[in-house]
Amino acid sequence: MTRFSYLNGEFLPHEKCFVHIEDRGFQFADGAYEVTLFENDNLVDGDFHLQRLMRSLRELNIEHNFTIEELKKIQLELFSKNNFLTSAYCYLQITRGVANRTPWCPKNLKNTIVATVSAKKIISPEELDKGFTAMTHDDIRWHRCDIKTVNLLASTLVNQKAKDAGFDDAIFVREGIVTEATYANVFIVDDKKNLITHPADNHILQGITRNRLIKIAQENKINVIERKFGIDEMMKASEVFLTSSTLIIRPVFQINRQEILGREKASKPSLAKILKEAYEDFVGSISSN
Amino acid sequence: MTRFSYLNGEFLPHEKCFVHIEDRGFQFADGAYEVTLFENDNLVDGDFHLQRLMRSLRELNIEHNFTIEELKKIQLELFSKNNFLTSAYCYLQITRGVANRTPWCPKNLKNTIVATVSAKKIISPEELDKGFTAMTHDDIRWHRCDIKTVNLLASTLVNQKAKDAGFDDAIFVREGIVTEATYANVFIVDDKKNLITHPADNHILQGITRNRLIKIAQENKINVIERKFGIDEMMKASEVFLTSSTLIIRPVFQINRQEILGREKASKPSLAKILKEAYEDFVGSISSN
Repeated sequence: MTRFSYLNGEFLPHEKCFVHIEDRGFQFADGAYEVTLFENDNLVDGDFHLQRLMRSLRELNIEHNFTIEELKKIQLELFSKNNFLTSAYCYLQITRGVANRTPWCPKNLKNTIVATVSAKKIISPEELDKGFTAMTHDDIRWHRCDIKTVNLLASTLVNQKAKDAGFDDAIFVREGIVTEATYANVFIVDDKKNLITHPADNHILQGITRNRLIKIAQENKINVIERKFGIDEMMKASEVFLTSSTLIIRPVFQINRQEILGREKASKPSLAKILKEAYEDFVGSISSN
Repeated sequence: MTRFSYLNGEFLPHEKCFVHIEDRGFQFADGAYEVTLFENDNLVDGDFHLQRLMRSLRELNIEHNFTIEELKKIQLELFSKNNFLTSAYCYLQITRGVANRTPWCPKNLKNTIVATVSAKKIISPEELDKGFTAMTHDDIRWHRCDIKTVNLLASTLVNQKAKDAGFDDAIFVREGIVTEATYANVFIVDDKKNLITHPADNHILQGITRNRLIKIAQENKINVIERKFGIDEMMKASEVFLTSSTLIIRPVFQINRQEILGREKASKPSLAKILKEAYEDFVGSISSN
């Protein structure tokens, strides 16, 4: 089975997809991206991902002349060319384009558009039941984390640092405030079953899965509060979990090698489990369209 | 004349140099680079640039098995293949390599090594005499500016923003402290002719030209102080100038549309001019080797 990828108008064998060395994505991280879940022939919240991508391009002043519909068509056609995949992800990256290297952002470039697909990794129920471990880490990222760009060096370095230290992930802390994990939003549940997460400002990415779970929570009469919180409050929570398009919901049981303090007393089933099931129902409902 | 570039062991026509779409440089800004001046068949401070590149790779935990000597040979051979260039720059970029996309940093990859050359832009004496204009801007970059990486989105966006607003460059300010311009170090001269610049910590790049100019200044009995300063002190300075391998020394006469206050009373010739001439003598001396 040949794995096909998309590059600037063509569907090519993945190993034949190359960009020029003066692509702005390669020299300046001058591009945006999205990772979208694909289940049973449908993109999960595909329109929201593409709307966010359009916002990212606007914030970066990356000119383009394509529509959300055109990008969606590319994604779906790519899955049909890789029809051995059922449960999978689409990675879509758009850069400003190729230009002689200049410190500023040249105008009127032809964008580079890349899309790849990969199978969804199956997580066993046992693995899920174990929960994640995380370390906290200074949020050394830039100050426009609200834009989903390939300016990802800080996240990838700190993610690796966490793994080297024996943790599953790292949770960023900026001036005492918990912002995000390296590639996921962070939620905590307090002893009154309030669901709390960082407000969507310039220090976090407004996750599509985050937003969907907030909506699902509210539909299930769970009180959602978007406000800042620190490490102490997180350590005392009943639950801590990470959310992203690839993790969906992943509970965190230990941070900095300490158990989350409120977990013992927390009622069962956990909110994470309730929300995960509701999210799966949601995915099932859009798949049948 | 064909412009040759270097890519992973080969010298190829520039337009034929491509990297895979899953190069870590393209997807995560996971690479380091250097820009080195080339004059009369010699790299200017070439060893210092390559030593810094080696440090950058170490700080990023990018494994490799090449030596400074090997990289230098590539650079010089590239200039000999582009022998129509006399006064020029070498851009050298090294990424972790190509890997299936993962949020962490995969090990044991084959690095991607890219080098390009471009002619040095000639600045007229009139243009130099005019001085730069700059705006100040929040330092929104990440917190490891000491590593020279391609994680450059903040710098390139803010540089463009400055140009859109009619300035030549922007000067970053982090928590009240002047750090750097978008791609250059910032020096000020006080009314006692002290040369002052931000200490080389994690908030600035330790510029090779910065270091060379500090050495030249000290040899010329100019007092150099590495300490932090704010916008007010900068505005009151006798001189403000930017330094980098491409700018060498570029005086700034106006910031946020206001004249540098101490400039009127400053003695002539300016320190910028004295240092620029001394730097040119230095380049001349190494070129004759």
